[in-house]
Parts: sequence; C-alpha cells; structure tokens
Amino acid sequence: MSDGRLSVNQETIKQWSLPELAEGCVKAGIDKVGLWRAPVQSYGVERTARLLSDSGLSVTSLCRGGFFTAPDPAERARALDDNRAAIDEAAALSTDTLVLVSGGLPEGSKDLHGARERIADALGQLAPYAAERGVRLAIEPLHPMFASDRCVVSTLSQALDIAERFPADQVGVVVDTYHIWWDDQAPAQIARAGAGGRIHSFQLADWITPLPAGVLVGRGQLGDGSVDFRAFRTLVEAAGFDGPVEVEIFNEGLWARDGAEVLAEVASRYAEHAC
Amino acid sequence: MSDGRLSVNQETIKQWSLPELAEGCVKAGIDKVGLWRAPVQSYGVERTARLLSDSGLSVTSLCRGGFFTAPDPAERARALDDNRAAIDEAAALSTDTLVLVSGGLPEGSKDLHGARERIADALGQLAPYAAERGVRLAIEPLHPMFASDRCVVSTLSQALDIAERFPADQVGVVVDTYHIWWDDQAPAQIARAGAGGRIHSFQLADWITPLPAGVLVGRGQLGDGSVDFRAFRTLVEAAGFDGPVEVEIFNEGLWARDGAEVLAEVASRYAEHAC
Repeated sequence: MSDGRLSVNQETIKQWSLPELAEGCVKAGIDKVGLWRAPVQSYGVERTARLLSDSGLSVTSLCRGGFFTAPDPAERARALDDNRAAIDEAAALSTDTLVLVSGGLPEGSKDLHGARERIADALGQLAPYAAERGVRLAIEPLHPMFASDRCVVSTLSQALDIAERFPADQVGVVVDTYHIWWDDQAPAQIARAGAGGRIHSFQLADWITPLPAGVLVGRGQLGDGSVDFRAFRTLVEAAGFDGPVEVEIFNEGLWARDGAEVLAEVASRYAEHAC
Repeated sequence: MSDGRLSVNQETIKQWSLPELAEGCVKAGIDKVGLWRAPVQSYGVERTARLLSDSGLSVTSLCRGGFFTAPDPAERARALDDNRAAIDEAAALSTDTLVLVSGGLPEGSKDLHGARERIADALGQLAPYAAERGVRLAIEPLHPMFASDRCVVSTLSQALDIAERFPADQVGVVVDTYHIWWDDQAPAQIARAGAGGRIHSFQLADWITPLPAGVLVGRGQLGDGSVDFRAFRTLVEAAGFDGPVEVEIFNEGLWARDGAEVLAEVASRYAEHAC
C-alpha cells in the first residue's frame, strides 16, 4: 500500500509508548519514524536508539530544537546549550535532521525583524557543532497564527532567507503542508529550496476547521481537509526531493483512538492522497 | 486626545445599539464610525443614515460584501445580488467603501487558485455597478488562518494581484493590522497599494494569544498584543494614505463591558499607540 517512503511521526500516535510505536510500525510494514525529544528522553536516548535499531526502524527527524528569540543573554545561553543537547540526541538516534521551531516574540516585544535576526545569530553558533555530528538543522516555518508565541518564521521564504546564510548541508528547511498550504508563494519557494538542496524534511498534515482553542492540536488526518497533498508532493519531487514523507498530525481525536487503527488509517490515507 | 482621524467600527462595541453608538461617539468627540450590514438592516438602512447624519457622524466603511467563491451558478447569482444590495446600502449610508471578505474554499475543494479567480470574476461584474453609485470595493486580506473557511485572499500581495485588474477608484484593499502584522512582505505591499491609490481602508486590531476556539473573536485591544501600530501607520502614510483610521476589534471581553468605557479605552489606546 505504501511506496516505502512513509515515515510516521510519533506525535501522530502519541497514545503509544516508544516500544508500542516500534512494534506497531514493524507490524504495519512501516520502517521510518519521526521522534520528539520529550518522549525519547523519558524512555532514554540510547535505549530508544537500540529499540529502533533492533526493530529495523530509522529515524527521519527529531523534533525539536529552536526557541532562539530571547534577548536575555542567560536565557540565550540556556537555549544554545539545550540545542547542543538536541543535536547530540539527534546524532545518538542516527537521524540527520533536527527540526527547529524558532521561537516567538519575547514578552512585550513587537520586533519581528529583531527576533528573526537572533535566530540567524543562534544558527551561526550551532550549525558547525551540528555539522561535526552529521546533523542538519531544519528551520520549520510555522503557520502565521503561531508568529507571536511559537515561531516568527512564518513562510518558506522567510525560512530560506535565514537558511541561505549557511551551507545547505548545515541549515535547510522543513516543508510542512499544514503550515504553508495557503501560501501562493509556496510553489516558487519549494523550487528555491530544492534548487539549493535545502528541503531537509517534508511533513504532511491536513488543514481542518474549526480550529480548537489555542490552535495547536487542530491538525487534520490526511484527506479530511483543504490540503492538496499530491500537488505538494509533485512540487517537492520536481524540486529534487526524494526523501521520506513524514506524517505529523496533532489531533485529540486521533489520540483518543486505538493506536494500531490510527496507524492503519494514516498508511491508507497516505496511499490515497499523497502517493 | 484624538487626532481627528479615529473611526470606531461598531463591532468593537457591539453591545451598543446604533442610537447608543451615535450618542456615545458624539459624547466622546468621535465623528466617524464603521458599520456592519446586519445591525444596519435591523435598524433600517435609511433610518441609520438619518440617525448618523443628524448626529454629525460619517461612515468610513460598510462591512461586508464578498463570499464570491461558490462555483454553483445559482449560488453565485445569489452572492452577486447580495453584493449589489450591499453596494446600495453603502451608497445610502454615504460611505465610499464597501469591505469585502472574499470567501473560503467551497465544500470539498482544495483549489485556492480557482477560488481566487472566481473572486476576480465577481469583481468584474460588481465594480462598474459600485462605481456608478460612488462606492469603492475594498478587498480585505484575512489572516491565513481563515483561508479555508472565510477568505482565500490571505496577503496584501494576493489582494493587490486581484485589485490591480480593475481601476483604482473601483477596487482597492483594506490594510488591517490584525491580518497582516506577521508578514515581512507587508511593508512593500503597503507601498505598492499606496502608489496605486488602492489603500481604501486602514483598520487596527491587536494580535493576542491564546486564540479562542474558532479564532474569530480573539482580537486584542490596541496595545495588548504584538502589533506595532505606529510602524504600520507610518507605512500607510508614507504610501500616501491620509484617510480615517478605523478600530475594529472582535473580543468577547470588550463586548461584556460598559460601552462608554470601551469607547474611552479605544480612544485612549489609539492616542497612545497609533498616533
């Protein structure tokens, strides 16, 4: 049913422990997962690496580093330390991609430009460290509804403006359909990202409404919303991307269901809408 | 306290009836209001026009026309009829500006481009009708979080791409800080709009989080959020705009308070943050 490129991000089925995820993916014939730091740290980084390796699973990305926008020096130093730890964890998990959620506006600030510059400054310090460990930093533009509180990088264009200050094998971008589907500049920016070798991750979730309060966990199962996944897949492939296609959905409804049922549905929807 | 350019959109104080709004504005020394069709229709269009004229109030804009994206011919015909009625109402209220919320994706559709083209097609039919009545159509780009269900026009750039197919005195755009504050292309697009004489309305609301469920009524009082109003005012004025500055906030908290208190706060925040 799958084309061998499907990766399932663990947050899509966060009701599952890591061993359940590993077992479930093996049973379903899926050999790639995306991971998040908190559950990996709870289970143990080395232990997670062994579990996945023993299960024949590879890790397509680790979420997330970032939160670079604090102007306070002590807070910045803590963020950089935490990102170096995230890079170490990515290396330990043998994934080449650390996803970055860059951070919102500092409390009381209205200076988007300044916040974006602090992101670039932090990347200048982290990219060489990551490169030495075989890890690429992938800037994820988040939907503009997250601009104040999570990520001042709202478009692929903005993400590339920052990423292109660094070598492509050190800093790239995440193309996540949920965040960019509305943007008529996205096709041109995907081409730009691909031409530069900067599509480091390709993630899928559908756009559905009404959005829940806080808007964080309102993503839709593939096919339930407004995103034309096949069009986006065609765009990234035309731009030279042939890597994993990661499904990352935050949705209370999916989390309340049986994990195996959700995984089967993800695989089936992926085949129907994104292959 | 005010600079004489403040206009208060009635939805900001929707707990007030039209007579209360007129009386409250006169008392507060505010001589401009923005109106919405539903409360005007309830009170009576001609009656509203007389009330405001007798109170010495002018109408800076009428919200809203639009919802042009349905592909079904009968539904399109109904939308065009309704927009002609909105234009007539705008003319009766002696406002030169009808604000358009263009419409989201039709049920089941993922075709943003097609929906945007249907907007342009509808404007082709409506703009001459509006021009004959002295009414300008103002395309309002809505925040991308509304792209699927309310408005497929998400940026000033997209709005201008459509508006520029028509004469500037017939079709322009709304610059609303709430919808565009996050966009690093907004300054260049405001300049483009101004150079073409297409800034038909300038509206203010602040961006605050967390967003409420449905995200429609989560706008912030000026100064409570992330928007740099003075920067945006500087941009529109540098682009040649010298019209009214309309405060339009949808916020349950404001609606629960005493109207006169809210109006005084709007005037005070306007003077503090946007003059």
